[in-house]
Amino acid sequence: MTFDYSAILSSRAAAAASPWKGYPPYHFVGGNIDEPTVPSEALAEAVKKVLLAEGHDMAKYGMESGPQGYLPLRQFICDNLKRCAAMKVSPDEVLVTTGSLQAMDLVNAALLEPGDVVVLEGANYGGALSRLRKLGVDFVGVDLDEGGMRMDSLRDTMEALKADGRKPKMIYTIPTVQNPTGTVMSTERRLEMLEIARDYDVPIFEDDCYADLIWEGERPPAIYSLDTDGRVIYCATFSKTIAPALRVGYIVAPWTVLKHIMPLKTDGGSGALEQMVLAEYLPSNFERHVNGLLPMLKEKAEAMTQSLDEHFGASADYIKPIGGIYIWVTLPDMVDTRKLSAAAAAAGVALNPGPEWSVDGEANKHRMRLCFGHPSVENIKEGIAKLADVCHREFGVPLRSGNVHRG
Amino acid sequence: MTFDYSAILSSRAAAAASPWKGYPPYHFVGGNIDEPTVPSEALAEAVKKVLLAEGHDMAKYGMESGPQGYLPLRQFICDNLKRCAAMKVSPDEVLVTTGSLQAMDLVNAALLEPGDVVVLEGANYGGALSRLRKLGVDFVGVDLDEGGMRMDSLRDTMEALKADGRKPKMIYTIPTVQNPTGTVMSTERRLEMLEIARDYDVPIFEDDCYADLIWEGERPPAIYSLDTDGRVIYCATFSKTIAPALRVGYIVAPWTVLKHIMPLKTDGGSGALEQMVLAEYLPSNFERHVNGLLPMLKEKAEAMTQSLDEHFGASADYIKPIGGIYIWVTLPDMVDTRKLSAAAAAAGVALNPGPEWSVDGEANKHRMRLCFGHPSVENIKEGIAKLADVCHREFGVPLRSGNVHRG
Repeated sequence: MTFDYSAILSSRAAAAASPWKGYPPYHFVGGNIDEPTVPSEALAEAVKKVLLAEGHDMAKYGMESGPQGYLPLRQFICDNLKRCAAMKVSPDEVLVTTGSLQAMDLVNAALLEPGDVVVLEGANYGGALSRLRKLGVDFVGVDLDEGGMRMDSLRDTMEALKADGRKPKMIYTIPTVQNPTGTVMSTERRLEMLEIARDYDVPIFEDDCYADLIWEGERPPAIYSLDTDGRVIYCATFSKTIAPALRVGYIVAPWTVLKHIMPLKTDGGSGALEQMVLAEYLPSNFERHVNGLLPMLKEKAEAMTQSLDEHFGASADYIKPIGGIYIWVTLPDMVDTRKLSAAAAAAGVALNPGPEWSVDGEANKHRMRLCFGHPSVENIKEGIAKLADVCHREFGVPLRSGNVHRG
Repeated sequence: MTFDYSAILSSRAAAAASPWKGYPPYHFVGGNIDEPTVPSEALAEAVKKVLLAEGHDMAKYGMESGPQGYLPLRQFICDNLKRCAAMKVSPDEVLVTTGSLQAMDLVNAALLEPGDVVVLEGANYGGALSRLRKLGVDFVGVDLDEGGMRMDSLRDTMEALKADGRKPKMIYTIPTVQNPTGTVMSTERRLEMLEIARDYDVPIFEDDCYADLIWEGERPPAIYSLDTDGRVIYCATFSKTIAPALRVGYIVAPWTVLKHIMPLKTDGGSGALEQMVLAEYLPSNFERHVNGLLPMLKEKAEAMTQSLDEHFGASADYIKPIGGIYIWVTLPDMVDTRKLSAAAAAAGVALNPGPEWSVDGEANKHRMRLCFGHPSVENIKEGIAKLADVCHREFGVPLRSGNVHRG
């Protein structure tokens, strides 16, 4: 007899994982980065140094730093946020997390109840939307343009909700290299967002996971830095700059709310070794390392846009990336990217269909997100060519690609 | 104006952390271990080797191993469980977690709803009880004796619940070096527990976090190894043998339930570096390392029992530890260990009061848990002497300690 767990699962455990099958040949999804850029040798030196100096402190759950995370790392985070994002914060306002995914789970858990409303960019990180769905939280999408979330649309949304007697729990935003559109919100819009948040008395959750990866134009000050009344909760990560598998992210928040977030982190802390190696490596290397990533990312972005131009021609529309690791592509209306995704998967090409990455799935069913951070330039070129073939076969577009007329 | 988060917190966020104040001088709480035993140098060598060989794989969230954790570590876990606990499992049945605390959270999340019932040892890990309380889960305590959970009491408990129309969601047990009693359940009792679980059609959650630390007698086979119908979910950790701050634990479970547990781990994986260094270090070092820990732990346990004998005399009763890092001490009835704990804290001594470590707080209010894994022998001796002073001052016992008659 085999015990039947299906009869006793909680309502949260409805989903079932499939056994992992490895990566597809053309892996244009997920926040993976370029393998050669992981600074393995420098990290190996750093970890050796810090282990010999402080390894014995790992005998205690929080080392000598307590439950908020390794203090030298929190200090670096503060120094770096001051340099890059104009934020003036102290290590007491930082909580190190297992990547920004745990940061998001913790902030959500602290603020959200089923039936609550969150206002966010209408095209959005699929993992943010799926988390809110699981929590039974309603979310309302705000329009975007080439400058990110539109403030007129935000104000209209807030006003409509107010008229409806519904007060949002927060505005969730990715203002810098927005996921998936890659847009960057200007300082002016950031100030306007703060004004709207004040007018409607709601906090802002600022997700800044990709903000280090801008190769064109200036990185604006974080919304957190412009806030004068402790209204912003901030999260970011080293996944996109050092290595995603390291799982080191963080929350920055006023103690008034951080003290309520901390008891929800019930895992006894995030891994010490990763915090220690980053605290040793980053202070003298982070800026230089990130500056080294940018030309490579730009090259990959250009390989992808050029391949889209070549193989999809006028059938593929997009905002040219100025940072980040993804492109949000609009295809002709007749293309359903969920069907395209299934057909492409069979051909070894993985992509994110628009409906999984947007609030209004129907309005975005001809859109898709393509990630270029991990694959090589060669792989990008091959994969986009394959994708165009699949798309043509399934939907009759693109009609022309490069010099080849399909039909 | 400062934004008021208190008005918008979720019901889960009621608790508030206090700023961390560092460790007290006599720190007899928590699963911390002996600082000199952390194998820092060997870990430094191992991490360097593995980073140079495979560091670039950290560019992907799951490296080349997928979402269940670093495959070489999962393979070691299987090999080691076969050697130590008679378990025959494959890496496909293993999920690496951020310590066993996350393992516990995940298993609870997969199975438990508010109002559910869990049956467990009546004296228990405080963190297990507080988690169940937060989930709104009822728990029913089973009596313990020197051989761990009593099977007559377990059957009575199950029968009483059945008569009451309540079917428990699981039996949670720490069969090997039970927390806090330090008891080890015999193979016979394990088989009987499985029989009872079959009779009442419930699964068993076996928490084996301290099982490596037995210095007297044989480690019995895991309940998981004796099970024939996939009824047992198992968790353990390297926190107590290598270092708690590394945060590497794991779940072993039949795929029928593991596939439902996996989607609940929404943090993008646990830290890769820690998994990599353990996979490199453990295969050729784990057995020898653990064998090196045992005499030191035994010495500390003896320092603590001898100090208790010397300073508390007949006022302190306990089961002499044969493994682990804690002692469950029974004081005279008039001692309220919650009050003792508060008074001792003022004198720099931290302890776990019995009511926080038991189902029936009132019946255990004269008991306490003392951890000896972290402090030095000298610190243990001083701390227990101080504790006896405080206890005498507050409650008039112990009357005599060593050659000193207090009064």
